[in-house]
Amino acid sequence: MDVGRRLHVAKVEAALLKGFRDYMNSQGFIEVQVPHITKATGACENVATMFYLDYFGRRAYLTQTAQLHLEILSQLIDTGKVYTLIRSFRAEPDVDDRHLTEFSLFEFEHVGGFDELLKHIEYTVYWGVHQVAEEFPDILTSFGVNEAWVDQFKPPYKKMRYDEAIDFLNKKGFDLKYGDDLRHVHEKVIAEEFGPTFVTHWPKHLKFFNMREDPENPSEVVSADLELPLVGESVGSAEREYRYQRLYDRLVESDMYKMLVEYGGDVSDWDWYLEFWKTIENPRLHSGCGIGVSRVVQSLLGLDSVKHAVVYPMDRLSIY
Amino acid sequence: MDVGRRLHVAKVEAALLKGFRDYMNSQGFIEVQVPHITKATGACENVATMFYLDYFGRRAYLTQTAQLHLEILSQLIDTGKVYTLIRSFRAEPDVDDRHLTEFSLFEFEHVGGFDELLKHIEYTVYWGVHQVAEEFPDILTSFGVNEAWVDQFKPPYKKMRYDEAIDFLNKKGFDLKYGDDLRHVHEKVIAEEFGPTFVTHWPKHLKFFNMREDPENPSEVVSADLELPLVGESVGSAEREYRYQRLYDRLVESDMYKMLVEYGGDVSDWDWYLEFWKTIENPRLHSGCGIGVSRVVQSLLGLDSVKHAVVYPMDRLSIY
Repeated sequence: MDVGRRLHVAKVEAALLKGFRDYMNSQGFIEVQVPHITKATGACENVATMFYLDYFGRRAYLTQTAQLHLEILSQLIDTGKVYTLIRSFRAEPDVDDRHLTEFSLFEFEHVGGFDELLKHIEYTVYWGVHQVAEEFPDILTSFGVNEAWVDQFKPPYKKMRYDEAIDFLNKKGFDLKYGDDLRHVHEKVIAEEFGPTFVTHWPKHLKFFNMREDPENPSEVVSADLELPLVGESVGSAEREYRYQRLYDRLVESDMYKMLVEYGGDVSDWDWYLEFWKTIENPRLHSGCGIGVSRVVQSLLGLDSVKHAVVYPMDRLSIY
Repeated sequence: MDVGRRLHVAKVEAALLKGFRDYMNSQGFIEVQVPHITKATGACENVATMFYLDYFGRRAYLTQTAQLHLEILSQLIDTGKVYTLIRSFRAEPDVDDRHLTEFSLFEFEHVGGFDELLKHIEYTVYWGVHQVAEEFPDILTSFGVNEAWVDQFKPPYKKMRYDEAIDFLNKKGFDLKYGDDLRHVHEKVIAEEFGPTFVTHWPKHLKFFNMREDPENPSEVVSADLELPLVGESVGSAEREYRYQRLYDRLVESDMYKMLVEYGGDVSDWDWYLEFWKTIENPRLHSGCGIGVSRVVQSLLGLDSVKHAVVYPMDRLSIY
């Protein structure tokens, strides 16, 4: 990609983030700044992709998600709503069109349930896209993006349960069974058919330990991935567990935790987090998400590589 | 500091950043996202305080400043103006009221010279403070901040050359000679006397290799530190060198570089940056700065520790 186009992408990213923040601010969310060097509390699902470093003699990690750090603030702050923009780090050795070792992740957390969560995600994405269209219509045109493509980001988005998604995909010729994770190709087929689509209520074993079990079916969690056209999964989200004992049990039973123990870690990394839930009076149901900024840029502009959606694309071989 | 007050501080930080971005956007600056894992190109003056990690078999660092990454974008983008908010990392073992191992740094870079630079810094700070006063007057009152305290952040700020600052401080009873670095106590005395004050035109050996030499006195650089009441240095800024050979020479002659070589580094870390200046046609004079967000918060609210100016205060002992 030539420099001129890459700088156009930078402007699109800037406008998108302005729209994200404007929506959040309009709803009473407070922007917060969170640590990027963390204990294992910064882990996403796959501990094997965490960068680590020597932090004054102890092992520390580069964050992948701020969700645990945000959860606590959402309980404490009077508006019950916080957001942040972090760099999310992945020690991902693949040099290809889908992976970056470092990227911008827009995360929010609020006191409230699933319907409100999905609404906030839809409108955050839409305000971002709308800001781009307002500010840089000529750039959109130069990427061949027309009004119909922009309009598909307008809420509400299609909602589809995970089990319905499996049925749909099998009708499309795939051979999936309940419990399988969706891969990139599956996500793209869903978004190609329905536009931006929330796939909801995933089997628990596929998802993060803090996602709340569906009271009506505890083998599934109240979670949603947003699949966007051309790129697939762009947002991960869920209601969170907030009962101390259940959180503790879910954590130590998780595959992520077992992997961490193999690397020499232990539960003490989560002490400050678990202690909070053990001692808080009247914890409230809360929900949150992480929006992959470059994925949204890539979907909006129809770019064939996520590396074209950022100014400094980083992978195993590229560092600046 | 109790939790309620800390959350008030979070709101002040959020409003301050909104004001910063609003000013930048009003002036045609484009927000960009930059790598936080870097080569030695992420170094500030003191290489000894860089966190490092194994990046697929090579030594990499956690950024301290995005200035080199921004410089290049400022040359390339049509508006000639970019900004970013990064986490700046310091492997600083002191556990005290002045140091954090990680903090938010607001940086901008623009094609243009010194007068414009100082104007942009003044107005960025002022728009931030003004946004706080608009959005959260009750929080300011609860911290005992009155109108007169807020008003002192209104531009223009006092400007004082480094040699004048030395004279002033010696009249105040200090025993400094030309070439000495200013310490915290000196910075505070200056800001106590004059309010927010730019100390300009520093001896070259005290400052970063990319700062432009004063054509009228090449032993000094065209740089400015902004000293704020109660906290001292809160912004570092300068015109940048942009002639390839001079940049190269200044880099390899710098104390920072010599220290890096002792740690096993070499000039190849800067290849991509130097190559840019070697090959660009018509490089343009540019300038930039880094604003310590928590320092501004601390000065505005009159907090006695920088650890009270952030939500998750990080030091050698505190990690989350």
